[in-house]
Amino acid sequence: MFADLFNRFFSSKSGRIYLDYAGSTPVDFSVVKEMENFQKVFSNPSGLYKESMLAKESLTDFRTRVAKVLNVTKNEVVFTSGGTEGNNMALLGTFEKFKTKIFTPHFITTSIEHSSTLEVCKEIERRGGEVTLLPVSVEGVVSVTELEKSLKDNTVLVSIGYANSEIGTIQPIGDVGKIIKDWKSKNRNSYPYLHVDGSGTSLYLSLDVGRLGVDLYTLDGAKIYGPKGVGCVFVKAGTEIRPIIFGGGQERGFRSGTENLVGIVGFTVALEHAHKDRELESSRLTLIRDYAIETILKNFPDSKINGSIKHRLPNNINICFKGLDAEFATIQLDLLGFSVSYSSSCVTLKDDSSSYVIRAIGGEECSKSSLRFTLGRDNTKKDIDLLILALKKVVK
Amino acid sequence: MFADLFNRFFSSKSGRIYLDYAGSTPVDFSVVKEMENFQKVFSNPSGLYKESMLAKESLTDFRTRVAKVLNVTKNEVVFTSGGTEGNNMALLGTFEKFKTKIFTPHFITTSIEHSSTLEVCKEIERRGGEVTLLPVSVEGVVSVTELEKSLKDNTVLVSIGYANSEIGTIQPIGDVGKIIKDWKSKNRNSYPYLHVDGSGTSLYLSLDVGRLGVDLYTLDGAKIYGPKGVGCVFVKAGTEIRPIIFGGGQERGFRSGTENLVGIVGFTVALEHAHKDRELESSRLTLIRDYAIETILKNFPDSKINGSIKHRLPNNINICFKGLDAEFATIQLDLLGFSVSYSSSCVTLKDDSSSYVIRAIGGEECSKSSLRFTLGRDNTKKDIDLLILALKKVVK
Repeated sequence: MFADLFNRFFSSKSGRIYLDYAGSTPVDFSVVKEMENFQKVFSNPSGLYKESMLAKESLTDFRTRVAKVLNVTKNEVVFTSGGTEGNNMALLGTFEKFKTKIFTPHFITTSIEHSSTLEVCKEIERRGGEVTLLPVSVEGVVSVTELEKSLKDNTVLVSIGYANSEIGTIQPIGDVGKIIKDWKSKNRNSYPYLHVDGSGTSLYLSLDVGRLGVDLYTLDGAKIYGPKGVGCVFVKAGTEIRPIIFGGGQERGFRSGTENLVGIVGFTVALEHAHKDRELESSRLTLIRDYAIETILKNFPDSKINGSIKHRLPNNINICFKGLDAEFATIQLDLLGFSVSYSSSCVTLKDDSSSYVIRAIGGEECSKSSLRFTLGRDNTKKDIDLLILALKKVVK
Repeated sequence: MFADLFNRFFSSKSGRIYLDYAGSTPVDFSVVKEMENFQKVFSNPSGLYKESMLAKESLTDFRTRVAKVLNVTKNEVVFTSGGTEGNNMALLGTFEKFKTKIFTPHFITTSIEHSSTLEVCKEIERRGGEVTLLPVSVEGVVSVTELEKSLKDNTVLVSIGYANSEIGTIQPIGDVGKIIKDWKSKNRNSYPYLHVDGSGTSLYLSLDVGRLGVDLYTLDGAKIYGPKGVGCVFVKAGTEIRPIIFGGGQERGFRSGTENLVGIVGFTVALEHAHKDRELESSRLTLIRDYAIETILKNFPDSKINGSIKHRLPNNINICFKGLDAEFATIQLDLLGFSVSYSSSCVTLKDDSSSYVIRAIGGEECSKSSLRFTLGRDNTKKDIDLLILALKKVVK
């Protein structure tokens, strides 16, 4: 019965329009091919024989390639099982390291972070830490003044998403880094560390992690046309965090477990593509995005844009339609052939159809009436024209 | 330069004999094929549109298939990134759950466990828990009498590997389970839980986890001709553990992070093959194993077997050659075309060429002089004859 559904779905020319690239990206064909090539390098890299040596060298080769894209050294790249594990490693790893040095380690983040940051913060509080959630502006931008005021002697980590996955607002990471740097030099402290979640931004924002002034940076294969179940964390040399997964001491002790070479190959190739295509694809999508926003706002007088126009991911369109039931509209649009989202996927899971991100930017009434359209490589301006037609049927 | 090495290695008919299947297994061709088929089901299972529904249904379908093999219900299957994460989840998850209920949660395991159990135990001690390492017999069998004596009011978990990955000794899990069950009923306690690490045994020992009397059970794709970076933990209904990775609440809250469907597909197919082939392949390898042990012991008078003859994995041969430098011998055998190991891979990584497992069974002088040969599907009796010839050159 299931196989049946599967075949029916993929055998028919579906003609559907996918507008949820922030939820998940398809895997690039060249990525799949290169992963296939490496299926034969299956040996445990920790052995002492030729097959193992080859696996170990492959691992070093791909680690070096990732490091090159990120402009960091290869020993600063720690492979993980994805973005969620990466954020957990950065936050819980810092907490577990400092909790023996500082009675109550203090963390600062924003109220609009992804659940893989916010839920970890709850766990940190449960384990005895302290968390400050910074408010954001009506455009979703974190206030650096508030950040500066929140820094305390026991602050060990500031964690900020490079851009918000729902409303696409890009944060001023450079300014945040400068404030932390000044604070550290004034207080002669080696902390707080700055962690940036770049899981959802690698296709569009700078991958020059080495110049970003961060201590920890999360990347995820699932959001960059790469495989799921693999990602990496940049851990700047000298940054003291404890692992969250213990065992054989792989990844220089930061992450135990037999290395998933095939996944790492896929992640690396996808990351290199992201790097190469970034500027062109960002320009292309920015045009489509701006066309979409302009046309939707014009066609629906009771609609407004959520998030910043200026500091916005090139692929993010998030619109509030006054009085709309966004959950129901998502289902209706699905029936019309459009895959869209009304909040981030990880929120959908919680059976709460309202968006905490949109509430946090002061849009209480928009929190259940907003739709997110996130563009990707298969989208064209024509998709937007078709979307408008569909929206006219759905939005009354 | 690297690509060169890669091509040279795989283009030449290598004619090598691989005897480290306990270190890692190649991925089955049919597994790779089925994973490829599912690359197109890329959507985030948490969405509300058709592609997401299909991903969600696929996930349920494969979870149900895993549950069927394990004779458990599908809600008791929690997908992970592999065996190491699985063991961490079982142990640290239990610790974090109980540390607020019991001042010093107590854990019992054996001195010969895999590093992904022993290193977690060290972390549990660091976080304020208490750990008892049970001794084992000269054959590597855990003493159930010692276990019974070690149980205390604050014991929350007993963790035992189903079989040892170095010396292949199978543990009496049934007896262990019975002792714990009696203790719980006598003390009217819902704990200690019994956790069994079955990562390395799925190809040969019973997969009827539902009947094994355990609360937590770890499986790993990398050891069953499946993909790396994926595995699962059986968490018996009602077992209270905390997650170790927090976020969107996937896997019923036990393990957050976008589900790695393609990996899960590969894991499931590999597990089904393991289940189907288990009896026949166990019989076949037992014959080769016994032939190997007999022939080696006959040809090398100063050699002896490590571990139990009777309670032994069908694919494990671990021999102590008096006075041999096992590390050097591994390298020499590699030059002669054999891939073997002198301890488990995760120990090799620690730059310590002696085996703590063999020390624990009283083989101090054997701990640096033992070689492990682990068989798999491509091995035949002829490989053993060739191995003996090679050993004659290496063992003086």
